Amino acid sequence: MTEPLRYVGMRRPRADGRDKVTGATRYAADMALPGTLHARIVPALYAHAHIRSIETDAALAHPGVRAVLTAADLSIRPPGSERHLEPLARDEVVFAGQPVALVVAESEAAAADAVHLVDVDLELLQPAIDVLAARRPGAPLARSTHPSTPGAGVGAEHRALGSGDGAGQAAGAAAGNQFDSLHEHRGDIEAALGSSAVIVSGRYEAGWAHQAPIEPQAATAWIDHDGSLVVSASMQGIFLTRDELARAFGLPINRVRVIAAPSGGAFGVKQLALETLVAGAALRLRRPVRLVLDRRDDLAISSPSQGLVIDLRIGADAQGRLEGIKAHITYDSGAFAEDSWHWFAPRLITGPYRWPAFDVTAVAVHTNRFGTGNYRAPSGPPGAFALESLIDELAHRLNIDPIALRQANIARAGDPMADGKPWPRIGAAECLDQVQAHPIWARRRQLPHGEGVGIAIGVWPGSAQPAAASCRLEPDGALTVVTGIVDISGATSSLAAIAAETFGVPVDQVTVVAADSSTAPATPSSNASATTYAVGPAVQAAAADARERLLRVAADMLEIEPGDLEIVDAIVRPRGSPAAGRPVADLARSLSDEFDSPYPPIEGHGATSHTVRAPSVAAHLAHVRVDEETGVVELLGYAVIQDVGRALNPALVEGQMTGAAVQSIGRALFEELIHDEHGQLVTGTFLDYALPRATMVPAIDTRIVEVPAPEGPFGARGIGEAPVVAGPAAVANAIAAATGVRVRQLPMTAPRVWAALRAQSRPRSG
Amino acid sequence: MTEPLRYVGMRRPRADGRDKVTGATRYAADMALPGTLHARIVPALYAHAHIRSIETDAALAHPGVRAVLTAADLSIRPPGSERHLEPLARDEVVFAGQPVALVVAESEAAAADAVHLVDVDLELLQPAIDVLAARRPGAPLARSTHPSTPGAGVGAEHRALGSGDGAGQAAGAAAGNQFDSLHEHRGDIEAALGSSAVIVSGRYEAGWAHQAPIEPQAATAWIDHDGSLVVSASMQGIFLTRDELARAFGLPINRVRVIAAPSGGAFGVKQLALETLVAGAALRLRRPVRLVLDRRDDLAISSPSQGLVIDLRIGADAQGRLEGIKAHITYDSGAFAEDSWHWFAPRLITGPYRWPAFDVTAVAVHTNRFGTGNYRAPSGPPGAFALESLIDELAHRLNIDPIALRQANIARAGDPMADGKPWPRIGAAECLDQVQAHPIWARRRQLPHGEGVGIAIGVWPGSAQPAAASCRLEPDGALTVVTGIVDISGATSSLAAIAAETFGVPVDQVTVVAADSSTAPATPSSNASATTYAVGPAVQAAAADARERLLRVAADMLEIEPGDLEIVDAIVRPRGSPAAGRPVADLARSLSDEFDSPYPPIEGHGATSHTVRAPSVAAHLAHVRVDEETGVVELLGYAVIQDVGRALNPALVEGQMTGAAVQSIGRALFEELIHDEHGQLVTGTFLDYALPRATMVPAIDTRIVEVPAPEGPFGARGIGEAPVVAGPAAVANAIAAATGVRVRQLPMTAPRVWAALRAQSRPRSG
Repeated sequence: MTEPLRYVGMRRPRADGRDKVTGATRYAADMALPGTLHARIVPALYAHAHIRSIETDAALAHPGVRAVLTAADLSIRPPGSERHLEPLARDEVVFAGQPVALVVAESEAAAADAVHLVDVDLELLQPAIDVLAARRPGAPLARSTHPSTPGAGVGAEHRALGSGDGAGQAAGAAAGNQFDSLHEHRGDIEAALGSSAVIVSGRYEAGWAHQAPIEPQAATAWIDHDGSLVVSASMQGIFLTRDELARAFGLPINRVRVIAAPSGGAFGVKQLALETLVAGAALRLRRPVRLVLDRRDDLAISSPSQGLVIDLRIGADAQGRLEGIKAHITYDSGAFAEDSWHWFAPRLITGPYRWPAFDVTAVAVHTNRFGTGNYRAPSGPPGAFALESLIDELAHRLNIDPIALRQANIARAGDPMADGKPWPRIGAAECLDQVQAHPIWARRRQLPHGEGVGIAIGVWPGSAQPAAASCRLEPDGALTVVTGIVDISGATSSLAAIAAETFGVPVDQVTVVAADSSTAPATPSSNASATTYAVGPAVQAAAADARERLLRVAADMLEIEPGDLEIVDAIVRPRGSPAAGRPVADLARSLSDEFDSPYPPIEGHGATSHTVRAPSVAAHLAHVRVDEETGVVELLGYAVIQDVGRALNPALVEGQMTGAAVQSIGRALFEELIHDEHGQLVTGTFLDYALPRATMVPAIDTRIVEVPAPEGPFGARGIGEAPVVAGPAAVANAIAAATGVRVRQLPMTAPRVWAALRAQSRPRSG
Repeated sequence: MTEPLRYVGMRRPRADGRDKVTGATRYAADMALPGTLHARIVPALYAHAHIRSIETDAALAHPGVRAVLTAADLSIRPPGSERHLEPLARDEVVFAGQPVALVVAESEAAAADAVHLVDVDLELLQPAIDVLAARRPGAPLARSTHPSTPGAGVGAEHRALGSGDGAGQAAGAAAGNQFDSLHEHRGDIEAALGSSAVIVSGRYEAGWAHQAPIEPQAATAWIDHDGSLVVSASMQGIFLTRDELARAFGLPINRVRVIAAPSGGAFGVKQLALETLVAGAALRLRRPVRLVLDRRDDLAISSPSQGLVIDLRIGADAQGRLEGIKAHITYDSGAFAEDSWHWFAPRLITGPYRWPAFDVTAVAVHTNRFGTGNYRAPSGPPGAFALESLIDELAHRLNIDPIALRQANIARAGDPMADGKPWPRIGAAECLDQVQAHPIWARRRQLPHGEGVGIAIGVWPGSAQPAAASCRLEPDGALTVVTGIVDISGATSSLAAIAAETFGVPVDQVTVVAADSSTAPATPSSNASATTYAVGPAVQAAAADARERLLRVAADMLEIEPGDLEIVDAIVRPRGSPAAGRPVADLARSLSDEFDSPYPPIEGHGATSHTVRAPSVAAHLAHVRVDEETGVVELLGYAVIQDVGRALNPALVEGQMTGAAVQSIGRALFEELIHDEHGQLVTGTFLDYALPRATMVPAIDTRIVEVPAPEGPFGARGIGEAPVVAGPAAVANAIAAATGVRVRQLPMTAPRVWAALRAQSRPRSG
């Protein structure tokens, strides 16, 4: 590996690209087992109510209907915490659209028709919709029959990321709808702010946003001939799903098998969405049950990204050195705190900077608006929106170049993070260097009136998880790599490059296969930027193991020391004697005659873990034109610059960055899940929930920075989440540069921009 | 492992037993993909002919018929050798029933109807049916358009087992229907026989026999959404099948996926039977194609066990020491020499004995009777029938106890086998000791007229093959073992015991999963007594690897040296401190919280090979009554005594031995595939092909001998084949003991016994 890399870093199309583009891919909704029953959800029509009764006779009498299931029919063990949504409302409805029953029929049409025949008798309760109103004493309670307990909504990440060594902590105050809170601090925040030369502050708000994968949720469950429960679905992790199904139904883990269907997009929302529901139905009815959400149901019941209200104040000395940060963040944790990210507030709001003092309070509040879910860098964009807007204001107030101010305050390796652990080396300075040199940035001073350029930077910690993989040499000399990954964003191609480089065969001779949960090596879910950083090293170890085994066999055959052999371009050869080589395929073929072979199979295995995470940093650069008459913001140029550690396949890395830019633009300007005062979802279709269309997005320029992560495969970092973090902040800073006006609410829709322009009349800040 | 074994040696039911007994198992014939087409074979109606034309219009016009495929429609690469049957006759029909076309329709009924509408115009040729007639000069040639070449019918086993170091060899004489021959010898056979005190000799014949699994052949092939070829079938090996399909259709190996359906019996016949045919049809028609043979087709076209004619002569000195053996064996290799076992003749006919001199000639002759296939210890029962009959005669002539004579001549470890390699330690003497002590043997001298007791002993070499496996600790503390085995005879249960014993958890916490060819660890086919001896060590290594990994983690957690820990009954504990233990399940659960875990997954991998095979010996003991008026042989008692090395699960070992005894009785007395002089199969149904029924079989007594194999898992040997070898010989010796008459033709049907009784009138020999 001291030679130049041959396959890592090569541009290659996604392994699954052609099938997806040509329509050959068979997604979860295409799954059609013989005898499959089709399910449709009966949604609650109100946001908050007690269920008096559910009348199913009329629906059951409908031709083709086989069952109408309610919570009582699904023998689901109550979850230990409220991390997981119950799939059907049991006694109380807590958001409009919440599933209360499941109609199961011989056809989708019959099920859809019968949904309207189910009579759900509700005793309406006052809903809590606005999170700031909901947290006040005396507000209507969003949940009555399931009071939350402090710390309830906290998953595995919390224990890893949230609480620190060096910071004072207080947590757990619960009252009314506020079910959890934390207070973490370090240093003397009042002294730090008191001695600051400049203090900037503001309230930043972000609405709920939907992950909006192209493919809606879809799942099928059945009982295998041996009595095992099998679930195939559009999902992000087979083992997470398997373990939760085993828990929910009290089954031994080896009686549950989970199959990931090819992914049509996830972004965090494909985690235990429908699997428990279809599994419960299949266990009850002993036939395959398939549930495919239409777009309206998908928008109504999936757990989206929660709303945040961030009160933030930062101070710096006259040279622009950051002195302190004080934040109070209200998390709208909706009806279920499944994935409320309030525990992450200290890490979120301190960003990639070094802070002598910080003081962060976060409160989590129930409302009658969905359950909370994960969404690609959960809470990251609102957090950076607040912080990077104020950093920009600070630079403006101090008349310091905003890049220079950021460069001066970037945390260096060893500085303490908010949780007290040391920062590893991150590529923030290198990204900012690239921003500095970027043509969009260069032209910011010659723009016509109404145009502006903004920058922002964001960091995402990624994750460090154990993983395993195996690697098998086939009789024709090809390699098969086996993992349990769900390939959402092209990980298969990156893993193939890792195996090819490690073993020494061209990457097109490597097939990466994802097994189901019964046979796959241990693999984390495809979330938390995990796949490349976690599974990559396992694949690397497996390929290295297989390579060593082949070299030992070849050395025995050629009567030479294994250490004197190398594998280059699928040729095993004595080092320095390329002419004396023997093709891997020849060796593989000769080994495939198995009788009495003294050689074990050429098959390697890797099982790895990390000691550190590898945070990724991404800078965004936006060039906007603001129509001051209408508030419409037009993007004229956009760039993303990211430290990816190592671009295993630059084509896919750029694809991730481009997609992240577009998603950022959506979060910045268009996308919001809006409820009316009764808790009815107003944006229930893609006509109302405004995803950016191609015409609304400029060409995205992507620049790759490579600051190797010590434990990453060939230095690679997990890159999926970081490039969405700072997007909305960059657009906000560009709007401020163009207009001198700060918009402090996401998305920055035309009406909001227009209102902000009307409300303020300060000079341009750019 | 120095402690007494806890799980190895425990009696447990088969993992798949309940599902098979209750009918829950879904076999290959139950496979029903949406859009599946159903195929039926159009058989040749004559044994030898040129195909002039195949008229398909009428069949194609039949409602529901989608295609009628002939050899020209299947783009199959010609096999490099004649090892593999072409699935459809191309120009020449070489046996009656040979598939000449495939009708593919929307239903099985439509396909079956249309078979009769396909008009196959044949130009009839003279068939060669009787192998002794066929080998004479001037006999009609069984094959005209595909002349065989010397050595053509020789598979992987040949290179391993057939040719020796210490023996003179000559091979390859081909003329007429005789397409291959070999002559191997050691010592001076004429001198050895010339100096012998006693010489016995005879011609022994054995007819063709069918493997007759309960489940007929069944296979389905389809094209996956990504264009890969997928085949699911009742088979014996996923990788063998995959590699041959890739070869036949010129596909990269990673574009072929093979799934083994649960097995309803195999005995050697489920190896590439229908897979190429359905795959060719699916590739052509781009829809799933399923072919399920009915019993008549299954008997007509499957490749059964070939017929043998053995001319044998052996000599011994006056003390019963064997001096020499001379054999000429004619193998009826049928129309295709796919699995003709003539290369094995020297090993076959010398049995488990030490021979100062041997001289073995084998010839392989084509006839128009099936292709040849493998059948549990291929050629073993006819070989032992000849040898053990003559050994018994020798004992009688010398008036030496037949057990004592065998004991005196059993090969000892280090003696040369026929192939020159040294014999490993085998448990023949121990088996004979058990025979000596057996009540059936003890009562042989007090039997009424017409009854007799016979014994015989047989050895089977087994095989030594590389294999791999993985072993994963689940969050609930259970183990998952992944291999690519096809479980024909309960191997899953044995492998579970190996993993349990090695890791230290109860066997019911181990699940053995068989993956398909895309993700399975390298695994040999379930033939040649391979599974336990080959895959067992890989599972043992994988479980040991996983155990070591868990101990390292536990040691780190408990701050103790890994070597000071042990795992007993699913408790990790400091050696000698049972009270201080921690359950494996607790550790597994704590490790399943993956974020930032410094510990890799607890997952092990094993990849192993052997330096020696582990032959198994089995002795049979039969007590018969012969009705001298009718020739009917009734079995009054039967015992099998086998050296299994180590009985991993005695219940299953005894099951194998019991099944082998019944199969031996079938081969001895009833089963024969008979053709008339035109080559038409007379025994085409189970009414004509006489499998033993329960009423025809006595209670079988099984005795297990355990002489550990040095490289076997816990000493276990591969045991599947050995216990069928000596069965017919034991029955023949019992008949001789009862009547004084030697029957020298298998099966020893009532007419043949009656004829032998009439032809001879010697005194009782028992």
